Amino acid sequence: MPRFAKRAAHIKPSTIREILELTQQPHVISFAGGLPAPGLFPVARIREAAAQVLTDDNRAALQYSATSGDRRLREWIAARSPGDPSPEDVLIVSGSQQGLDLVGKLMIVPGDRVIVESPTYMGALRALDVYEPDYRAVASDHEGMDPVAVETQLKGGARFLYVNPTFANPTGTTMSRERRRAIVDLARRYDALIYEDDPYRELRFEGGAVPTMQELDPDHVIHAGSFSKTLVPGFRLGWLIAPDQAMTLLNRAKQAADLHTSTFTQAVTAALLDDRFLAEHLQAVRRHYSSQRDLMLSALDEHFPSSATWTRPRGGMFIWATLSPEIDAMALLPEAVERGVAFVPGGPFHPAEAKANTMRLSYSVATPDQIETGIKILGSLL
Amino acid sequence: MPRFAKRAAHIKPSTIREILELTQQPHVISFAGGLPAPGLFPVARIREAAAQVLTDDNRAALQYSATSGDRRLREWIAARSPGDPSPEDVLIVSGSQQGLDLVGKLMIVPGDRVIVESPTYMGALRALDVYEPDYRAVASDHEGMDPVAVETQLKGGARFLYVNPTFANPTGTTMSRERRRAIVDLARRYDALIYEDDPYRELRFEGGAVPTMQELDPDHVIHAGSFSKTLVPGFRLGWLIAPDQAMTLLNRAKQAADLHTSTFTQAVTAALLDDRFLAEHLQAVRRHYSSQRDLMLSALDEHFPSSATWTRPRGGMFIWATLSPEIDAMALLPEAVERGVAFVPGGPFHPAEAKANTMRLSYSVATPDQIETGIKILGSLL
Repeated sequence: MPRFAKRAAHIKPSTIREILELTQQPHVISFAGGLPAPGLFPVARIREAAAQVLTDDNRAALQYSATSGDRRLREWIAARSPGDPSPEDVLIVSGSQQGLDLVGKLMIVPGDRVIVESPTYMGALRALDVYEPDYRAVASDHEGMDPVAVETQLKGGARFLYVNPTFANPTGTTMSRERRRAIVDLARRYDALIYEDDPYRELRFEGGAVPTMQELDPDHVIHAGSFSKTLVPGFRLGWLIAPDQAMTLLNRAKQAADLHTSTFTQAVTAALLDDRFLAEHLQAVRRHYSSQRDLMLSALDEHFPSSATWTRPRGGMFIWATLSPEIDAMALLPEAVERGVAFVPGGPFHPAEAKANTMRLSYSVATPDQIETGIKILGSLL
Repeated sequence: MPRFAKRAAHIKPSTIREILELTQQPHVISFAGGLPAPGLFPVARIREAAAQVLTDDNRAALQYSATSGDRRLREWIAARSPGDPSPEDVLIVSGSQQGLDLVGKLMIVPGDRVIVESPTYMGALRALDVYEPDYRAVASDHEGMDPVAVETQLKGGARFLYVNPTFANPTGTTMSRERRRAIVDLARRYDALIYEDDPYRELRFEGGAVPTMQELDPDHVIHAGSFSKTLVPGFRLGWLIAPDQAMTLLNRAKQAADLHTSTFTQAVTAALLDDRFLAEHLQAVRRHYSSQRDLMLSALDEHFPSSATWTRPRGGMFIWATLSPEIDAMALLPEAVERGVAFVPGGPFHPAEAKANTMRLSYSVATPDQIETGIKILGSLL
């Protein structure tokens, strides 16, 4: 093969997806994937919407279409988004993962400092890796990123910050209102750009809503949203909300990358969304994940050793456990899979080499029995 | 907005799409777009397939899925592709446009010489622009790229060649068997990579099939195919066929870019494709475009001045007209639109400044009456 892939060294395989492929045998209890529970997919509603869209006089739903996306869908997203954006501020993307690729492409040249939490969403690291950033990891606690650490990096020249602020993947924690304000203020002061990756925002079980970072400063924040966790992931539908100047460039980058997102899945989604359906559907989704979280927290209390600690998320899909310091979670994984349980070791969520005694536990797809059994098995291994 | 878009200067708007937006008023006769005729979309068949896919026990069709794509779809593509590839050699992408972005991302670093025809597919230039290539335009004639000019560029250090060899956009010409062999031989000799962008291959009206370049040397050619011209573009479904080593990297790049293409549109497509349906459908598609081409060629013969010449494509959607040297087609466009006819001026299809006396005429969506009327109006303007 000719000199293929000059950037190959920067494009790494995703540990999560490789593990997922290993653990898809039906007998393995999986706390590994970040998959939404398929039982929650509104199949009948989608079938109805697809039939409604697929008529002889609606062939535009199968044709090429505008790069920016379906007008009705953008209006709906704008109307439901905090900060009162207009439909022109919304770009439909092929899953919010694509938003990362587009923004990385526009913002990062090799060696640019990029501020991330450590741990952070692994898929973001893999998307941005392509553009060869110099990751600057900052500390977080139960309130999210530490603004002092962020300012140090801004002083050092970083101008781009990636954050997953609400029910974060992998930790389940949510950045507090005060921290959001502090970090947005810093972005303004240093003229930096924040990428607010917010796919879990609607999955809040308890507590009051926190403002989005974009709401606090629309000029320094690109907000990424997704239908993958609220509706279905298989449509690959997400969106970016961005300021004018950025939007023009994002639109061009999107056009160069794939012309536009599927006209058909956009039309089906626009046809099935109405506020009443969504309110009822989201209530069912939240109730389900909330009950799953409760079950996993109880099982952890009962079966995990006292040397371990874990987060208590108020929404989303993930619990992050910190084990006794001598434990290597990566080394534990094959043993756990052999005993019939899968999780994701914490290491790969860090932009650099990191402590190995952590694991991400997802409660989204296991049955109640599996949660009890699986956590018991993991507890006995620890 | 903070230092947004370091690569912005390399990401240009697409003239085609901007013109398309101008000419979407229903009273304008459009020879401008490269849109397939919506009357050919197999709506009933898609409706049936969607209903078949959307059942309660088939929720996997709405879930996250493998980056490489739907197994059944990949098997179907592999079985129908020349050169006997295996399903493992096939990667499903979000329209073949995405293939260009992925390969550009892997292959091109700023300043790399990239060999293209001039004129060539504008969307390819816009996709590759992002990676800052140094385009090396080579001459073509009615048999396609000139191998002598290609070798000159390979000697000069170019190692990547983009070509749209069959019923090319914008010229409608097809590279001959001998030229394909000569250029593939050169790629092997100089260890270069060819990107064979082949979305129109199935739209042959007459003449025998020519081998794909990939069939002639699978190790030096990445082949890109698409359902956009044969089925519907609104699903955004295309594919790459690539050698092993490239496939591993393409898969990672695809995963980083958008995880995977819509599970749902892949499942619907896999459900509706069978060889008999496709054979009948493609026959209807070819018959329609062939008759449209005949009408446009007759109208051109009748109404265009003798100073103009044009291609006589044996398939695809496009005719390329060369006008009297003093005519500036770009300057002619506003006047033509005012008279109710749109086309795409030839300039933007060239990687560098180019002769302005050319135009691309698409016969895909106009009615027979519109073809006659529109060409007559254009002829009177010339």
